Amino acid sequence: MIRLHVEAPLFGGAVVEATADQAHYLTRVMRLGPGDAVSLFNGVDGQWRARLAEAGRKAWRLVAEDLERPQIPPLDLDLVVALVKRARLETIVEKASELGVGRVRLMLTERTNADHTNIERLAAIAAEAAEQCERLSVPPVLAPIRLADLLASWPAERRLMFCDEAGDAPPAARALAGAPRPAGAWAVLIGPEGGFSPQERAAIRAVPGAVPVALGPRILRADTAAIAALAIWQSGLGDWEGT
Amino acid sequence: MIRLHVEAPLFGGAVVEATADQAHYLTRVMRLGPGDAVSLFNGVDGQWRARLAEAGRKAWRLVAEDLERPQIPPLDLDLVVALVKRARLETIVEKASELGVGRVRLMLTERTNADHTNIERLAAIAAEAAEQCERLSVPPVLAPIRLADLLASWPAERRLMFCDEAGDAPPAARALAGAPRPAGAWAVLIGPEGGFSPQERAAIRAVPGAVPVALGPRILRADTAAIAALAIWQSGLGDWEGT
Repeated sequence: MIRLHVEAPLFGGAVVEATADQAHYLTRVMRLGPGDAVSLFNGVDGQWRARLAEAGRKAWRLVAEDLERPQIPPLDLDLVVALVKRARLETIVEKASELGVGRVRLMLTERTNADHTNIERLAAIAAEAAEQCERLSVPPVLAPIRLADLLASWPAERRLMFCDEAGDAPPAARALAGAPRPAGAWAVLIGPEGGFSPQERAAIRAVPGAVPVALGPRILRADTAAIAALAIWQSGLGDWEGT
Repeated sequence: MIRLHVEAPLFGGAVVEATADQAHYLTRVMRLGPGDAVSLFNGVDGQWRARLAEAGRKAWRLVAEDLERPQIPPLDLDLVVALVKRARLETIVEKASELGVGRVRLMLTERTNADHTNIERLAAIAAEAAEQCERLSVPPVLAPIRLADLLASWPAERRLMFCDEAGDAPPAARALAGAPRPAGAWAVLIGPEGGFSPQERAAIRAVPGAVPVALGPRILRADTAAIAALAIWQSGLGDWEGT
C-alpha cells in the first residue's frame, strides 16, 4: 500500500490536493488512476485510506474515506547530530526517521567544518523514509544550532545519551540499564567525525541528564554511531519492547 | 596515524611492497615521503609501525619496525545478508566492518532480484573501513550462495540471530538475553527488502541455533536492519562490554 505524508487535516470526507510531486509519483511512477486507494497520514489525525480523483489538467486530489490506524504520539526522542558530510548526514536523517526519532536537531561544533546544509532536502528524506517505514509522523529537521547554545537552553527533564568516543564511558546498554521507565524525554547526541574538543566534552557531561555511553572498541563513523546508538536506545528504552 | 591493511607477513624488519593504490595514497594524497611512519596490519601478526622507503621509480616499500598492538582474534560473527541494491549493500559491508563482523556472507533468496555483485569492490570497502576503524583484520566477503545451500550446510554450533520482520518474534535484546556467554559462534541474518517467503522463514527457524528477533514496529530497510542488529548483538554479546 502506498503511503503519503500530507500537511492537510484528515477526517472522513477530507479533500487533499496532491502536490505536483505527489501527483507525478502516483499517476506516472505508480500508474494509479481515478478511484485507486492510497493511505495518508499527517502526524496528527492517524492514517486514512483515501481515493484518488482527477481535478483538472494534471491536478489530482485525494479524498479521505476511512481511518486505518489511529494516531499514536511519536517518541519524545531527539537525535542531535553534528553537521557531517552531506551523504552521511542524509543517511543519518533517513535512518533516524526509520528508527522512530521524534525530531532531528543539527549542531555546529568546534570541529564541524560545514555551517549550513539543505534542510528542505533533509526534510524530504525524512518524509520519504517515514512513508516507507509505516510510521505515522515525519520527524522535523531543525536548523543547525551551536553546541553552546544548545546546551545553554537544554531542558532540565530531557536526558541525554552522549555517545562519547573518548574512552571512559560505560558500554551503551549497561549505561542505559538503570534509566527510569517509561523513558520520558531523551536525546541521542552524536559528534562530528573529528570528535568533540575537551571543553565541549566537559560541557556535555555537565548537563544534569547526561548519560555518557561507549559504542565499542572500534572507531565508528558518525552515521554508523547514530544508527547503532538509536537502535540500542530503542531496544532498551523505546517502543521495541511492545512489539 | 595512517593504517594500511597488507597481505604480507609482518615482523621486525619485514619489507612490504606497497601496491600502486597504496603508493598513490601515501605519497600523493597524504603527501608522505621516505622515512615517514605508517601502521600496518594483516589480520594475523598484529599492528606494526613501519617506515616508508622509495624503491625505484614510483615504487615504494614499507619496512616494519615495532609491534604496536598484538593481534586479537576477530569475533566469530558472520553477517549473512541478501543481495540488495548496490548502494545499500556497500553501506552494509562498510558498517559490518566497522561493527566488528568476522565475515560477510552474501545470500540469494526467492525474492532477491540480483544474482551477482562486485565482490572485489565490496572487499575494498571492507578493507578501507577496517583501516579507518582501527580493527586488526578485514572481514572477508564471500561469494553469493543460495539460502537453501547455506542452511543445508549450517554448522550445528553456530547460532543464528534471525531478523524476522514477519511479526511474532520477541524484541532483539530480550531474545538474546538468555544466550550463553561467552558468545561463541554466531551469525546475524538479514533478508531482502521484499522479505523471506513463508517457506524460507520456516526453514530458517528450523535451524537448531536459530533465534528469531524483531527490530521494532517500523519496517526497516535492509541496511538499517543490518546495522541495528549488529549493534544490538555487539552490545549484548560482543566485545562492547569489555571497553
